[in-house]
Amino acid sequence: MSPVEKFMLDVSAVVDNALDELLPAADAEPARLHKAMRWSMFAGGKRIRPGILFAAGRTFAADENLLVRTAAAIEMIHTFSLIHDDLPAMDDDDLRRGRETCHKKFDEATAILAGDALLAQAFEVVACDESLSPELRLKLVSTIASASGTPKGMVAGQQLDLEAEGQTITIDELENIHARKTGALISISAIAGAMIAGATDTELAAVELYASKIGLLFQITDDLLDVTQPTETLGKTAGKDAMAEKATYPGHFGIEATREMADKVRCEAADALGTVDRDTGLLLEFADLIADRSK
Amino acid sequence: MSPVEKFMLDVSAVVDNALDELLPAADAEPARLHKAMRWSMFAGGKRIRPGILFAAGRTFAADENLLVRTAAAIEMIHTFSLIHDDLPAMDDDDLRRGRETCHKKFDEATAILAGDALLAQAFEVVACDESLSPELRLKLVSTIASASGTPKGMVAGQQLDLEAEGQTITIDELENIHARKTGALISISAIAGAMIAGATDTELAAVELYASKIGLLFQITDDLLDVTQPTETLGKTAGKDAMAEKATYPGHFGIEATREMADKVRCEAADALGTVDRDTGLLLEFADLIADRSK
Repeated sequence: MSPVEKFMLDVSAVVDNALDELLPAADAEPARLHKAMRWSMFAGGKRIRPGILFAAGRTFAADENLLVRTAAAIEMIHTFSLIHDDLPAMDDDDLRRGRETCHKKFDEATAILAGDALLAQAFEVVACDESLSPELRLKLVSTIASASGTPKGMVAGQQLDLEAEGQTITIDELENIHARKTGALISISAIAGAMIAGATDTELAAVELYASKIGLLFQITDDLLDVTQPTETLGKTAGKDAMAEKATYPGHFGIEATREMADKVRCEAADALGTVDRDTGLLLEFADLIADRSK
Repeated sequence: MSPVEKFMLDVSAVVDNALDELLPAADAEPARLHKAMRWSMFAGGKRIRPGILFAAGRTFAADENLLVRTAAAIEMIHTFSLIHDDLPAMDDDDLRRGRETCHKKFDEATAILAGDALLAQAFEVVACDESLSPELRLKLVSTIASASGTPKGMVAGQQLDLEAEGQTITIDELENIHARKTGALISISAIAGAMIAGATDTELAAVELYASKIGLLFQITDDLLDVTQPTETLGKTAGKDAMAEKATYPGHFGIEATREMADKVRCEAADALGTVDRDTGLLLEFADLIADRSK
């Protein structure tokens, strides 16, 4: 196991533990709702967003106890988005990470409400995190809300993605969709880690650029996985993007050119950290981890 | 027009103006999403929650400029809940306030995302309201989030309400559902107004008790309206609760006993304010306004 893989395992354990404590108990009423929230929250997610948050935090020497609640909150918002995106009215997915999606395991109404509840709770978690200063908590609430909503955030990205189905779109439009749908929450994760660590504005700008490249890299490799891996490995229905006539990088450029693009974006992520006078090794390894998942 | 009716019109105008400024422009991308948010946001809602927030704020002599953003944020969350509750997987309503519901006017995916975006934006609005101290903003974010989510808030209430359909439930269970589904957000509206005004803990406790009675009164009169008014007056499908085998007060007690219960709860709301050494006339008139809507 590489150091960054070990790091990700450690982060996952810490964040999963926090999530278990923060989420309503599975036997508390309404139990079906809480079971649904936990079903999707503990579905084997890789905790990429907590990972990049902790990696950025460690780079700027954060006390790691200060990172955990914000990381858990962002993962709640990520899970909310997965639950809603999987709904029949959206991407209509029955399977995620090899398990039934929330609305298949429970029902559609419960799935919608489980997503809603996770979104609301995420902001409660950040607002109540007394280990952080009031000013920092407010900054986190507002930037995470902006990255989650519209016009610049994840919800806007999902809307644009749905509207683009079956349409011919330019590569700029594709990048614009993914910057919001996937990039915004990944970026804010990295920025949050650096903010909590007390990074300077110059450092935050470098982290933001790095994170935007990671978000793009993540989407490119996700698209590659969709066309190169069988359903069993993928844990979700392979080739689904192509079937839904979704705009993807391999669909636009072909697989080989997409692989080259992934290499280029990985280099750009590394370059973005060039001005940072810290040990950026962990963030560089994190970029490799994302890049290598499609190999 | 009674003084409280005039007051409600003034509050609606101020809050609608703020909402118009705060929401993304209808022609900004993704335009369909923003049009859907505005469609439901400006659908002729009575602005009950902003009304009670302003009434509580004025009772404790708040600068009214400090109330408007929090009121707008809570109304965003209320609208999010209406959009999601109307979805086919939930209450499946085609009509609200005489107009098509969000998913009928647009589509289901857009409606789900419009609700999601309103929920996220509400917290951004409160967190960014620089007219309030950081500590107060954090308190508002956390209490509003708690009142919106689970286990004590609106999302939990909607889950319990759906689970109770076709079931025989006790009156305690019915009150428990409504305390979360409707009561929690109405309560937090009143409390937020008093908090922003700098009310003491004793005053806040009185307002909280008053608001819990108003929430109950609101639900009782809502149930009465459903069985006593024709669809045209109601602006939504009349008798729908009964058809859906929803637990309601008139269904449980009959119409006459429910009317008596409404009178009793109105008196309890007034009694709750007995310890408050302020002019509580406006809050009392507000209780009358809620009570009288079913007459």
